[in-house]
Amino acid sequence: MATGTINVSVENIFPLIKKFLYSDHEIFLRELISNATDATLKLKHLANIGEAKVELDNPMIEVKIDKENKTLHIIDQGLGMTQDEVEKYINQVAFSGAEEFLEKYKDSAKDSGIIGHFGLGFYSAFMVADKVEIKTKSYKDESAAHWICEGTTEFTLTEGEKETRGTEIILHINEDEKEFLEEHKIRELLTKYNKFMPVPIKFGTKTETLPKPEGAKEEDPAPTQEVDNIINNPNPAWTKKPADLEDEDYKSFYRELYPMQFEEPLFNIHLNVDYPFNLTGILYFPKLGHDMAMQKDRIQLYQNQVFVTDNVEGIVPEFLTMLRGVIDSPDIPLNVSRSYLQADGAVKKISNYITKKVADKLKSLFNNNREDFEQKWDDIKMVIEYGMLTEDKFFEKADHFALYPTVNDTYQTFGELTDKIKDAQTDKDGKMVILYASNKDEQHPYIQAAKKKGYEVLLLDSPIVSHLLQKLETSKENIQFVRVDSDHIDNLIKKDEEQISKLSDDEKKAVQESFEKVVPTEKYTIQLEAMDSDAAPLIITQPEFMRRMKEMQATGGGGMFGMGNMPEIYNLVVNTNHELIGTILNTKTDKKKERLIKQSLDLARLSQNLLKGEELTNFISRSFEMIK
Amino acid sequence: MATGTINVSVENIFPLIKKFLYSDHEIFLRELISNATDATLKLKHLANIGEAKVELDNPMIEVKIDKENKTLHIIDQGLGMTQDEVEKYINQVAFSGAEEFLEKYKDSAKDSGIIGHFGLGFYSAFMVADKVEIKTKSYKDESAAHWICEGTTEFTLTEGEKETRGTEIILHINEDEKEFLEEHKIRELLTKYNKFMPVPIKFGTKTETLPKPEGAKEEDPAPTQEVDNIINNPNPAWTKKPADLEDEDYKSFYRELYPMQFEEPLFNIHLNVDYPFNLTGILYFPKLGHDMAMQKDRIQLYQNQVFVTDNVEGIVPEFLTMLRGVIDSPDIPLNVSRSYLQADGAVKKISNYITKKVADKLKSLFNNNREDFEQKWDDIKMVIEYGMLTEDKFFEKADHFALYPTVNDTYQTFGELTDKIKDAQTDKDGKMVILYASNKDEQHPYIQAAKKKGYEVLLLDSPIVSHLLQKLETSKENIQFVRVDSDHIDNLIKKDEEQISKLSDDEKKAVQESFEKVVPTEKYTIQLEAMDSDAAPLIITQPEFMRRMKEMQATGGGGMFGMGNMPEIYNLVVNTNHELIGTILNTKTDKKKERLIKQSLDLARLSQNLLKGEELTNFISRSFEMIK
Repeated sequence: MATGTINVSVENIFPLIKKFLYSDHEIFLRELISNATDATLKLKHLANIGEAKVELDNPMIEVKIDKENKTLHIIDQGLGMTQDEVEKYINQVAFSGAEEFLEKYKDSAKDSGIIGHFGLGFYSAFMVADKVEIKTKSYKDESAAHWICEGTTEFTLTEGEKETRGTEIILHINEDEKEFLEEHKIRELLTKYNKFMPVPIKFGTKTETLPKPEGAKEEDPAPTQEVDNIINNPNPAWTKKPADLEDEDYKSFYRELYPMQFEEPLFNIHLNVDYPFNLTGILYFPKLGHDMAMQKDRIQLYQNQVFVTDNVEGIVPEFLTMLRGVIDSPDIPLNVSRSYLQADGAVKKISNYITKKVADKLKSLFNNNREDFEQKWDDIKMVIEYGMLTEDKFFEKADHFALYPTVNDTYQTFGELTDKIKDAQTDKDGKMVILYASNKDEQHPYIQAAKKKGYEVLLLDSPIVSHLLQKLETSKENIQFVRVDSDHIDNLIKKDEEQISKLSDDEKKAVQESFEKVVPTEKYTIQLEAMDSDAAPLIITQPEFMRRMKEMQATGGGGMFGMGNMPEIYNLVVNTNHELIGTILNTKTDKKKERLIKQSLDLARLSQNLLKGEELTNFISRSFEMIK
Repeated sequence: MATGTINVSVENIFPLIKKFLYSDHEIFLRELISNATDATLKLKHLANIGEAKVELDNPMIEVKIDKENKTLHIIDQGLGMTQDEVEKYINQVAFSGAEEFLEKYKDSAKDSGIIGHFGLGFYSAFMVADKVEIKTKSYKDESAAHWICEGTTEFTLTEGEKETRGTEIILHINEDEKEFLEEHKIRELLTKYNKFMPVPIKFGTKTETLPKPEGAKEEDPAPTQEVDNIINNPNPAWTKKPADLEDEDYKSFYRELYPMQFEEPLFNIHLNVDYPFNLTGILYFPKLGHDMAMQKDRIQLYQNQVFVTDNVEGIVPEFLTMLRGVIDSPDIPLNVSRSYLQADGAVKKISNYITKKVADKLKSLFNNNREDFEQKWDDIKMVIEYGMLTEDKFFEKADHFALYPTVNDTYQTFGELTDKIKDAQTDKDGKMVILYASNKDEQHPYIQAAKKKGYEVLLLDSPIVSHLLQKLETSKENIQFVRVDSDHIDNLIKKDEEQISKLSDDEKKAVQESFEKVVPTEKYTIQLEAMDSDAAPLIITQPEFMRRMKEMQATGGGGMFGMGNMPEIYNLVVNTNHELIGTILNTKTDKKKERLIKQSLDLARLSQNLLKGEELTNFISRSFEMIK
């Protein structure tokens, strides 16, 4: 029996690391700036605990392009390296100096913000450079070092000439990657990945206007000076304590995050948790339109202030991906698949925490300023309703703040609503019937009929409303939602009142027969009802169940299989107590009777938006004829 | 000066490979089956060229779960390894046996289908297993080998007891990953990644019914037998020559790809190219609905018959991601970002090739059976119109087959259309005016008015049509699209005909004033026109430019900034030659006049779908009053 050690040959693995370490070449800059940041933070930490005796003087990182020599420079003023340290940290791929540092100083350095982890980041430089140089001088009193590697596994390491403390990485950019010598490209990358990193990053200079000296004339130009152009905000709002921030600070941070966004956010939620995982962040509720798909991928994910991705699927519960803002957590595993993320226990906890925080915030907004909350409801309801549908915990909590608006623009919670309507809208079997409309215009006559009875009519117009009603009906007891146009009003909420018909049974039979001759019965089921004499003579209705199933299928998922393809079926309710029906009954000639029924049917169809095309054109020209 | 060699330490890199080699743990099975496939294909190749003297007898790969021992087994009947070969290929991470094999047999093995590349795949086993064993026996006359590694960098290698040729990999599945001991999970993975791999893969057995023996009685059960359950089709349609496939073969392959899809594809495009890149595949045009977003991610990407992804963004031009089917190419780099892919020269060529092939196929379908093509137009137009909008090369080619349907369901190419209408629809300034409608019902009276003049009216109802018209107007010379309801018909195509008004200028002034008193002029601009006396008395129109800009903004991109928020503005065209206008002019009392104008305006609004809500309800009850 032989035992041995698995061998990784540099010649084999090195090309793989260079080519496939990261899926995106542009990551190299983020990695090198992360290293430069770590070098700076480590020095700060050593100075703080008295181990390094140095003048710190606000150290920064500089990024420079040298077009002529085709090089890109990343220069820090951090702790630098001695020749021995270069040997140790650079020449051993995958040996992480950050891990070692955190291990050594584990008590004091826990919150130092050091980023590095696997010791691979530096080698990402070779994804874009043929040749990489390191010029470095340690904060310790030792000579500088100069390391050069031309992309093979060979390197040279000599004494260097660098005189100031810190490290300069020089990338000799590969011909195929020369976009990384363009100022706009580098600025784009710095803005994307490094905008909120904790050490100031200088990229070029900019001209600043100074105040005019006293006694300067009106026409004198204001003096200017060249100053460092710092591309990042090292202290973004989410790293601060909520108590230290005003409303305006949150708004101005929103503008920093989304400079192209003109509308202000409706409100924000500051996330801050240490245990059992680390997470900070600020989420904003933007004004949302009705198109859910357009709104996603606007939350940015950071790890220790380094931008990672704007795809937070799997980390943030789906209904909250419509929000905006940032999340910063070192505890989210990134190199695993999204489907794995969703099953991961730690990530599940993060997602639950965010859901809970959002629900708590909504509840306190509702409690603290209900009027304001009501005004914002239309802009936030999509998120809340979608959350109620997809997250059971959120559904429960939403009972405290989810609003049900009426067609009269009043807003109530579910509890308030049922208290208000329970007397009037409980039917003879003890079931509470909640009436709703989806469109004030289209369902106007039906809404009017319900109002006349003293009923409340909700206005529920989100695309997912049919799914939500289904969920409410199965979670709450003994309630039912029906749309106002799904039957005539006396049938929607059945009471123990007898309908008294003006017509005899024979007369009813005659009316039924007359209508059957004229109305296409494959489309309309004729339904005679003894209603109020001043209700409409004819009403077209569509049963709730069928319509809702179709809607649920159309908005994806739910409903019953195959329902989507069922033909539209309507009821034609004939009010036998209306004067017009009497007129029709007593009309002598068949031709006249037919004309009356046809015209009445056209008017009823018009009111349900069912008279279209040629039939509508004919109706209109007939009507013009009548008045000319 | 010191030179040296960069060092990769196994202790450091091995955990990284185990943890982060692939973003998805489930990939391990694909990798191990790829290795087993390579071992089998290599042996086949050596047997073919006479280097291995073995009985091949249709070798297969077997996958087995042993729940009791918590192990997963992958067993092949390929060339196996001697102890020396295990030492060489397994114990050296990232040393690719496949690369070496292809190098050695480069002339003969070019088309052998060997998959391996980087020699890393085997180690993905450690993503899910604590301990991995290899039992292997080479086709050469040497003793078997048994390798065991418990996830550290230590291994043991001893003489083994395996008696049959080939390799068995045994994974002792980690407690956290025990889903990979579930039959349904393994079947799901095999179906996803290995469904079309070139060596038969056995997973369990299934019961097959045999024909009854002769003389069996009616009531005797048919005999059955247990047979190997082969989960893959080693010879999928795309690997065959188009000449060897019938229409039915393509359809049955479609059902194999999308077993849950009940509708048949409209037609297919067989891709097949060797130079300058390798690509095979079959694309299908499915019946498309109107919702573009729902249709994506249905094309599957393979490399040498191994499934890679169903996200082909960047590889296939965007407008074709609505198609279905497979693409197989070893030449598409996968470990690079999508944005990089889009810039990559080779990928760009692939994308252009696919676009060209699709355009050629559409042209030949059009030429060979125009009637069939016209029937399918409604189901394919989304793809074609979107392609015309986004790919200039496709736009040019589409001139041969893109169809412009009329409201009468006739179809013509742009050339045919302009030939047909150039006499009647060229206006007095020599510009050809193409009339269109977006909805036959809603624009019915306007379509009728245009037809009466002998004009063609196109029916263009895709959501992106306003963008496409904009593109056509800027690419073709001296043409203009106008929707039929954007003005009254005599103004849409202006001819050198004088309009003769029945009214004097004074009378016109009186009409104008009467209308201005009643009509809300902030919404409607009153426009007096001397039209045919049998045209409608009032028409509401909406100018083309404004409407189109709003539509373009609504469907994303284009249009003019801020247009989306402009209020809707309409023109109220008053036909001064219509009898009704005379009646209004001559009506004596103001009250009567007002009632007439109001009723006429309501009818005109009804015809543009602008009479809604309370106003419509009132109109209807007024009308019921009139007939009762």
